[in-house]
Amino acid sequence: MNSGNKDSEKDSAMHVMDGIHSSHDGLKRTRRRKFVKKQSAFSLDTTYEQLITGSRIHLAQAITLIESLKRSDQDVAQDLLKKALPHTGKSIRLGISGIPGVGKSTFIETFGYMLCELGYKVAVLAIDPSSSVTGGSVLGDKTRMEKLGSHPNAFIRPSPTSGTLGGVHRKTRETMLLCEAAGYDIILIETVGVGQSETAVRNMVDFFMLLALTGAGDDLQGMKKGIMEITDLIIVHKADGDNVRLAKRTVREYKQILHLLQPATPGWSSTSLAVSSYKNIGHDDVWEQVQSFRKQMIESNYWEERRKEQTKSWFHDMIQDRLIEEFFSEPEKQKQVDSLEQDILNGDITITGAVTQLFSK
Amino acid sequence: MNSGNKDSEKDSAMHVMDGIHSSHDGLKRTRRRKFVKKQSAFSLDTTYEQLITGSRIHLAQAITLIESLKRSDQDVAQDLLKKALPHTGKSIRLGISGIPGVGKSTFIETFGYMLCELGYKVAVLAIDPSSSVTGGSVLGDKTRMEKLGSHPNAFIRPSPTSGTLGGVHRKTRETMLLCEAAGYDIILIETVGVGQSETAVRNMVDFFMLLALTGAGDDLQGMKKGIMEITDLIIVHKADGDNVRLAKRTVREYKQILHLLQPATPGWSSTSLAVSSYKNIGHDDVWEQVQSFRKQMIESNYWEERRKEQTKSWFHDMIQDRLIEEFFSEPEKQKQVDSLEQDILNGDITITGAVTQLFSK
Repeated sequence: MNSGNKDSEKDSAMHVMDGIHSSHDGLKRTRRRKFVKKQSAFSLDTTYEQLITGSRIHLAQAITLIESLKRSDQDVAQDLLKKALPHTGKSIRLGISGIPGVGKSTFIETFGYMLCELGYKVAVLAIDPSSSVTGGSVLGDKTRMEKLGSHPNAFIRPSPTSGTLGGVHRKTRETMLLCEAAGYDIILIETVGVGQSETAVRNMVDFFMLLALTGAGDDLQGMKKGIMEITDLIIVHKADGDNVRLAKRTVREYKQILHLLQPATPGWSSTSLAVSSYKNIGHDDVWEQVQSFRKQMIESNYWEERRKEQTKSWFHDMIQDRLIEEFFSEPEKQKQVDSLEQDILNGDITITGAVTQLFSK
Repeated sequence: MNSGNKDSEKDSAMHVMDGIHSSHDGLKRTRRRKFVKKQSAFSLDTTYEQLITGSRIHLAQAITLIESLKRSDQDVAQDLLKKALPHTGKSIRLGISGIPGVGKSTFIETFGYMLCELGYKVAVLAIDPSSSVTGGSVLGDKTRMEKLGSHPNAFIRPSPTSGTLGGVHRKTRETMLLCEAAGYDIILIETVGVGQSETAVRNMVDFFMLLALTGAGDDLQGMKKGIMEITDLIIVHKADGDNVRLAKRTVREYKQILHLLQPATPGWSSTSLAVSSYKNIGHDDVWEQVQSFRKQMIESNYWEERRKEQTKSWFHDMIQDRLIEEFFSEPEKQKQVDSLEQDILNGDITITGAVTQLFSK
């Protein structure tokens, strides 16, 4: 676990969400003032230096550049990210999914707080594919994780709220890298459990957790197809009060199912745990699972291997996205596709014929 | 079930695999002779007319055009398919998958023969993604289904053996349409259970069956991730002799798992059955399931709805394949991608930066 600059971080920053860098370091204050006063004085080198020493304000600023729709910002963001690359990759990347109502925020708050108290620097990110449409956003409500948000070791960032689906995924992935460069030891990426974001998150994390409720069968009906098969750990949440016995039974049921399915990670037996965030029970077990997973995967070399595979597939997915985006960037093309689609459904043309027509110059 | 020209078919053709049209109709014989003597006399109209009256020789000839790598053949094939489109869509399309050794050929032979004896015209196709590399092919060995192959109601066609993966899928789908135009009531599409062909087959059939062996857990370890979640019926095969009791237990286990997973088809409860092709037991139950499925889906209107969705997604997948194909058709591009991939893995460039570089003109 890389947590070298943990202590200095505790001194140099207090709040995560408010964007105020409350450092006692006079030099940093001066720099910030200069930045606020004249934006033109932005310095890539300064931002980079501050970022890798763990400055929250510069991290937030870098993420804003990553999320910007302005081409010039994007170019600067990529230059910054490139400089930061050697400092990335040292964290544990965790994905968390689950249907609405399962208590994801409460779990992340409790789990994240525990990790922060253990001395780890924890960054919480989110992917919400609906946010780019509605402007709403996972983790968008700052008050949702008040306790975690005020911990000096925590950094919380809501889902990017603009761009294509692929764009939202890319931004979250690059934000994760920036957080790593800023010295965060554990990255938690939350997804709302709709759309194709689970696959995207699975493809950017080391360990994927699924939050579920008691009554495995009923609960699963609302889950996405195939989600159990990408899951390293199913957490049966709200295992408290009258619910405890049922939760334990559900854990057993999930264990049985997981035993029958192919493992999400080769060499790892996916399992299930009962957790209560209300009663603060079980989060240490989750962390134990993650650590044991990491140890095993590093020994088998799959840790690095998967990350390499993820990087490659990310590259190829982005090429594909770009090709489709460019193709449909001509408004005429979209119209033509729609009209050909109708012709196909009417039986007026074969699919192959339609594709040939679409690509004839 | 559309089986209008079933009886005439029985008279007009005897063998499936040998490609000999043993019709007693003198006119047809003459036409065939003409075709064999001078290929240039190929007539789209004649082939079409013969195809839709169920001539096996013309069906085989049309499929050969679909599978041809020659551009001119492909153009003719598309013209023919377009003409045939109004006669397509009336069959029941069945997909069958399962790991090697599960007895797919034996099952198809026994099940297909039963259907032929019931008076249905049955076409058996196959997708083997490896065949385009190795030249080997599912159903390639004609002797594998000798009994079914000699039934006048059956038509068996091996997997296309050339072209890209997407090309193999396309050819099988278009072959299915040609078989429908030739009056086949039931299309069975076999897949070998490797690569991405399950998804492709699921996306061209109405009902998807998975063949499995006893000992659900062990068997599933060899299965593809997510395959149970696209399956409408799991057939526990080789349920004979000492194996019967174990098979029944495995059926119960699969039923439990399927109950917990999301249904492959909305409104349909996927289930499991024990079948012995050796003892000829259970194939009628499978057929009963298929018929009950069809009835329910037609009532809920999902039958047509899914086919529409399949057609649309097929169109969009082909556009995507074509974009990627065109992009990589320049040998320089592949080299550039490989070299950028290395730069990314070395941390010399960001993924976004690499994509930008790739697409800069």
